[in-house]
Amino acid sequence: MNRQIIMLRRPSGEIDPADFELRQVPIPAPGEGEVLVRTLLLSIDAANRAWMNAMPTYKPPVPVGGVMEGVTVGRVEASRDPRFSPGDLVEGFGGWQDYAVERAGALYPLTPREPLTQWVNALGVAGKTAYFGVREVGRPRPGDQVLVSGAAGSVGSLAAQIARLSAEGVRVVGVAGGERKCRWLTEELGLDGAIDYKGEDVGRAIDRHLPDGVDLFFDNVGGRTLQLALLRMRRHGRVVCCGAVSTYNDTVAKRGPAGVPALLTIRSLTMQGFVVTDYYAPAVRAAAEAQLAEWIDAGALVARDDVVAGLEHAPDALRGLFRGDNIGKRMVRVAT
Amino acid sequence: MNRQIIMLRRPSGEIDPADFELRQVPIPAPGEGEVLVRTLLLSIDAANRAWMNAMPTYKPPVPVGGVMEGVTVGRVEASRDPRFSPGDLVEGFGGWQDYAVERAGALYPLTPREPLTQWVNALGVAGKTAYFGVREVGRPRPGDQVLVSGAAGSVGSLAAQIARLSAEGVRVVGVAGGERKCRWLTEELGLDGAIDYKGEDVGRAIDRHLPDGVDLFFDNVGGRTLQLALLRMRRHGRVVCCGAVSTYNDTVAKRGPAGVPALLTIRSLTMQGFVVTDYYAPAVRAAAEAQLAEWIDAGALVARDDVVAGLEHAPDALRGLFRGDNIGKRMVRVAT
Repeated sequence: MNRQIIMLRRPSGEIDPADFELRQVPIPAPGEGEVLVRTLLLSIDAANRAWMNAMPTYKPPVPVGGVMEGVTVGRVEASRDPRFSPGDLVEGFGGWQDYAVERAGALYPLTPREPLTQWVNALGVAGKTAYFGVREVGRPRPGDQVLVSGAAGSVGSLAAQIARLSAEGVRVVGVAGGERKCRWLTEELGLDGAIDYKGEDVGRAIDRHLPDGVDLFFDNVGGRTLQLALLRMRRHGRVVCCGAVSTYNDTVAKRGPAGVPALLTIRSLTMQGFVVTDYYAPAVRAAAEAQLAEWIDAGALVARDDVVAGLEHAPDALRGLFRGDNIGKRMVRVAT
Repeated sequence: MNRQIIMLRRPSGEIDPADFELRQVPIPAPGEGEVLVRTLLLSIDAANRAWMNAMPTYKPPVPVGGVMEGVTVGRVEASRDPRFSPGDLVEGFGGWQDYAVERAGALYPLTPREPLTQWVNALGVAGKTAYFGVREVGRPRPGDQVLVSGAAGSVGSLAAQIARLSAEGVRVVGVAGGERKCRWLTEELGLDGAIDYKGEDVGRAIDRHLPDGVDLFFDNVGGRTLQLALLRMRRHGRVVCCGAVSTYNDTVAKRGPAGVPALLTIRSLTMQGFVVTDYYAPAVRAAAEAQLAEWIDAGALVARDDVVAGLEHAPDALRGLFRGDNIGKRMVRVAT
């Protein structure tokens, strides 16, 4: 049988367990050009929550009554496409279920890595989002003063490190919630500073850590953090709009930060949004993965796995992400 | 004697004639390395109003009790610097007065052009702002759907035309206030469409003129116009934040448009601000002026002068700019 987690209704604000239902259905059979994939790891991303809202994002919303959507790493069980054979490892968009039938053209072949969680973490969507956001959008310059929000999260923790690896003399300060996360940022990741948004005044803390202002702000959070950072941007500064996790639970669209657009003009600032698939041309994607793998293998990039065991815990895992429970990349282990 | 217009106090909201005072003082004498310049033309720019607020822009605010600041085209009367001689034409930052003593290094030599107003209009700050905003920031691509706000103003009217001159198959629609301005945009400038924000629903009009959405929005206005345009941006769209004339009279900083930052992420949008002086490296500036002159001489660029006679009318001229009185580049003729 195939266990599926169904989105019964769109959440209003914070996710409620009653928004979901676990259902059992027969394991489906692949048609021509399709592949049956056993889900091994399910990536839990803040974006999952945004996809549940009625407003389309870069893709249509999750349909009410449909299987909850998510990026997956899995193993091919049966294939009706010459490109894949049983046993192959693949990244797909299999969703919150034990088995998914996917079009072969939508699957991405993975080479075996130990641990396999790397393909969800630093080599996966999280790692590539951080990589392209820093290297293609933010483009650190030597000596840049860099601020990262959501810095103990999957993308933020990698982006903070990649910024330091990308130009000489870059100073990186992370914003995260709680002392434990902040200690991890400075002691394990080697950031130049950490700001605990739950325990201190963020604006004053930015002023203290980055007294000359911010050249590059890698923002995963939006809302008040973005407002405080924007006011502290230096001339020609860049804001990488990677995510806005503070707003995904909003039931009405809030106004943006003061200073848009006048401050952008006055200080020649750039705010640029992106999604990782903007950079999925095969050679570009492969080059990013090669660089990330090199950093991982050299010990230059610390990627922490936050693994929750069992498909049935996926809703809680996502809810916890919005409470800031995780350090590093949250994922659900569905099978081994 | 030298007539000067003094900023007596910072305006609260709209400019009040009582914010200014006309004063007469002796004509000053240049010191070593300085030049005495007779003001011929005074550029009236929306930015002048922003400089009057207490909050610094890209430069310190106009000091209370000081001569009101502005970009000027003038003629050298006396020089104590080898780079300038009496009779030379110069662009400077002489302010609202008949004569200014300026540092020679801050003056920019102008070649004689007939009419001289070209050096305030399409060859001046207005033309170069439009040029760099389109060519360096917005970078039109073939087939782009372009929207320009403040399109009957100096920068907007030039930016709209330069966008069409910069890539094949570009469609340009302008937003302006009133039928007369809209007719000018379509009949004289040859834009593909004009939206009268005083007479029609701007959102619906954008949908009608640009049904596939907006690739490039050249924004001089901010506020509600920016909000409506932002919601209609296509994936990978760019917003050039050139100005925010709708907000310069605000006494408190208003929140920005909804959709910042989440919509930027979802649609991979870029909002980029700039000031013209970002591109004042001598070779870059000279190349822009050469291209603009070529277009003017070929009749490819329509630049309309809106000349107010008499220094004493400068405050009214600036006030009128915020009421939308002008079509094209507003300036004050101080002397001939």
